Amino acid sequence: MQKPSIPKGTRDFSPEEMAKRNYIFNTISEVFRLYGFQQIETPAMENLSTLMGKYGEEGDKLLFKILNSGDCFSGISDEDLREKNPVRFAVKACEKGLRYDLTVPFARYVVQHRNEIHFPFKRYQIQPVWRADRPQKGRYREFYQCDGDVVGSDSLVNEVELIQIMDEVFRRFGIRVCIKMNNRKILTGIAEIIGEADKIVDITVAIDKLDKIGLENVNEELRSKGLPEEAIERLRPIILSQGTNKEKIATLREILATSEIGLKGVDELDFILDCVSNTPIRADLELDLTLARGLNYYTGAIFEVKALDVQIGSITGGGRYDNLTGVFGMEGVSGVGFSFGADRIFDVLNQLDLYPEDSLKTTQLLFVNFGQKEMVYLLPLIAKAREAGIRTELYPEPAKMKKQMGYADAKKIPFVAIVGENEMAEGKINLKNMLTGEQSPVTLEELLERF
Amino acid sequence: MQKPSIPKGTRDFSPEEMAKRNYIFNTISEVFRLYGFQQIETPAMENLSTLMGKYGEEGDKLLFKILNSGDCFSGISDEDLREKNPVRFAVKACEKGLRYDLTVPFARYVVQHRNEIHFPFKRYQIQPVWRADRPQKGRYREFYQCDGDVVGSDSLVNEVELIQIMDEVFRRFGIRVCIKMNNRKILTGIAEIIGEADKIVDITVAIDKLDKIGLENVNEELRSKGLPEEAIERLRPIILSQGTNKEKIATLREILATSEIGLKGVDELDFILDCVSNTPIRADLELDLTLARGLNYYTGAIFEVKALDVQIGSITGGGRYDNLTGVFGMEGVSGVGFSFGADRIFDVLNQLDLYPEDSLKTTQLLFVNFGQKEMVYLLPLIAKAREAGIRTELYPEPAKMKKQMGYADAKKIPFVAIVGENEMAEGKINLKNMLTGEQSPVTLEELLERF
Repeated sequence: MQKPSIPKGTRDFSPEEMAKRNYIFNTISEVFRLYGFQQIETPAMENLSTLMGKYGEEGDKLLFKILNSGDCFSGISDEDLREKNPVRFAVKACEKGLRYDLTVPFARYVVQHRNEIHFPFKRYQIQPVWRADRPQKGRYREFYQCDGDVVGSDSLVNEVELIQIMDEVFRRFGIRVCIKMNNRKILTGIAEIIGEADKIVDITVAIDKLDKIGLENVNEELRSKGLPEEAIERLRPIILSQGTNKEKIATLREILATSEIGLKGVDELDFILDCVSNTPIRADLELDLTLARGLNYYTGAIFEVKALDVQIGSITGGGRYDNLTGVFGMEGVSGVGFSFGADRIFDVLNQLDLYPEDSLKTTQLLFVNFGQKEMVYLLPLIAKAREAGIRTELYPEPAKMKKQMGYADAKKIPFVAIVGENEMAEGKINLKNMLTGEQSPVTLEELLERF
Repeated sequence: MQKPSIPKGTRDFSPEEMAKRNYIFNTISEVFRLYGFQQIETPAMENLSTLMGKYGEEGDKLLFKILNSGDCFSGISDEDLREKNPVRFAVKACEKGLRYDLTVPFARYVVQHRNEIHFPFKRYQIQPVWRADRPQKGRYREFYQCDGDVVGSDSLVNEVELIQIMDEVFRRFGIRVCIKMNNRKILTGIAEIIGEADKIVDITVAIDKLDKIGLENVNEELRSKGLPEEAIERLRPIILSQGTNKEKIATLREILATSEIGLKGVDELDFILDCVSNTPIRADLELDLTLARGLNYYTGAIFEVKALDVQIGSITGGGRYDNLTGVFGMEGVSGVGFSFGADRIFDVLNQLDLYPEDSLKTTQLLFVNFGQKEMVYLLPLIAKAREAGIRTELYPEPAKMKKQMGYADAKKIPFVAIVGENEMAEGKINLKNMLTGEQSPVTLEELLERF
């Protein structure tokens, strides 16, 4: 007999884990809705033609492909088969694949439903994605993504609201965070003024690593990409610039005085910070010129959220992009979006023990079962407790008291109601507080009031 | 450029559909929790060895199989390939498949986590499943199931609570329903007393169709299965028996007087009905001897819920089973469970227009955008509205009034706030009721109170 197991890199979620995850997703959903975002869902399976070529060659390999049902060999020649090329075979034998992220399905959704959508479209989406990555600690083959985007609007007020949303979500979680910001246009401007506009990708990839590898190694990398010493020298004070955000912005204005695009980036950042300061924001906001995240995708603001009290990578990130849907033939859809890292937020909340007690409570009250007569007596009482909204159980078997109490303990049920012969005669319920051990006879009305 | 689409038999869910689905799933979840059920989730992908052979030969074909990533040809001989047998190839080239229902993954979960679970285990699970069925109206290749089970307890009080849960869920939905009940032991008893114990499956399969094909065709089918006329004659009064549940039970007691198992089934049913009558149940309860549902699986109570005001198949069903996990090497796990038909409930609520207004409301208040100055003025006000829990948006662009109002209409936003030069000067907000067209200047405090 096989010992049952699940595919590597996947997880079961126990009741306690589900309670925690529900708390996370419900909190995020509530904040999204408070800001007028609407939820959508897309199918787990997309046409492989929708997914292929969107994540680079490596990404194509990491797509889970679904073998065509019926005859998977139809349309495959003997020649194809003899070749035994898994990549070319997969494309012919599989029409469908599991979604790899929520961005491509969202882009597909926007194009497919363009006539039903009222732009600007504020959508959020919380669904699992699948990647055939090598599983390792903290990296799964199935994991949830949690994305919010506003598409069809260039207004910077969207950036402002995204910052407010991040701030509000982490305030509700009780996680102290720093929201780091940058702007692609500033990076472009910097590349311009050091005379290396064509090397912008090399430059940002290198300075993105500053925190991890230090300035000397960043400079070494820049040299290896062919940046002259003079440019590296001019870059140094920029990426090491210190001070408040206002001071950094003033410095940037001077440095980027001759770069039109660079100044535009500074203006954007300045405006966003100004607006945000006009709202009751709690998070630290930090202009970080080394922040580059997926540079090839972003065209304006770039965000990243770091937890202050736990050593862990970024727990949220995003930015503005210019062309979400061009690959599906719909040009000019710009937007700004971000993604909450649900698994990392889960870890942070665990490490800091921040789950509110209420979010983990399941059953509030367990009635002990002494046998059929007592049970029949209790059913209407229990119905009343549930009508009053109290999450109530009746232990289903007349098992030994110890076993029933053990069940209450295991399920962390805070109150147990004991109703035997005597209590039935007196019309009372013996209510036991499982935390203190206190026990007292109460009427049903008193019990209902207690909760 | 390809026109983007999704695989046949799958669906996108728009914001409005998601609001409706969330209402359905949240309502069901709340009732489950009220009864002490806990949520779990399992991975979309299971090992194919977990799934194969659990749904019959036809079911094996309907499993979506995931091509092994890396080299799917490793372990496949040239001989295998020449054969071009899609079924045998799939088993070798695919280790994983998408879950086909929630029952087999649940059984796998119970066995795998037997040492962490505190029995009796009351679990619910709401997740999509995938079947490579031919898509048709109302039948999808991806659809949600919504299952609740209590395992590790033989007590009939579980059946009673399941009926209460069904009743409460449909009461909250406002759907009038009839809960039909039967018991596998009664069906066994009937087969026994008509002298055809070995034909129980044929008999129940046939009488299950009574509603659809009528008595004459049922009898024809019984004849074709080799049932003698005498047995068919003896069956007639049983399956046509009329009257109240109590009357039917009395009749059954007489008819089944010589069948031990039959009488046990009658006792169970009688006890369940007795207990339920002791609770504030609203649904019609009907003993229906033609109800057989998945007979090979169920061993005791059988349930089915029918909507009274819409012509549609059963919208919920379930029953008691004896051996959930034997196939995974863990014997003796009995339980009782049921499944809400989410797609059909969605249709019924649509047809009867029963979605509460609140469940479909998204944004409550839209602030018109007149330009940068007004926007900067509004940001702190809007933050206050959100702090008060009002789902609020600021239109992100200073677009024409008509366009902004059109956005409010499209999103069914009930109130629009207009703040231009004059209002700013007076410290007022011009609040427009989009339903009545009424417009009145209010202070921020008055606005907050209004909601």
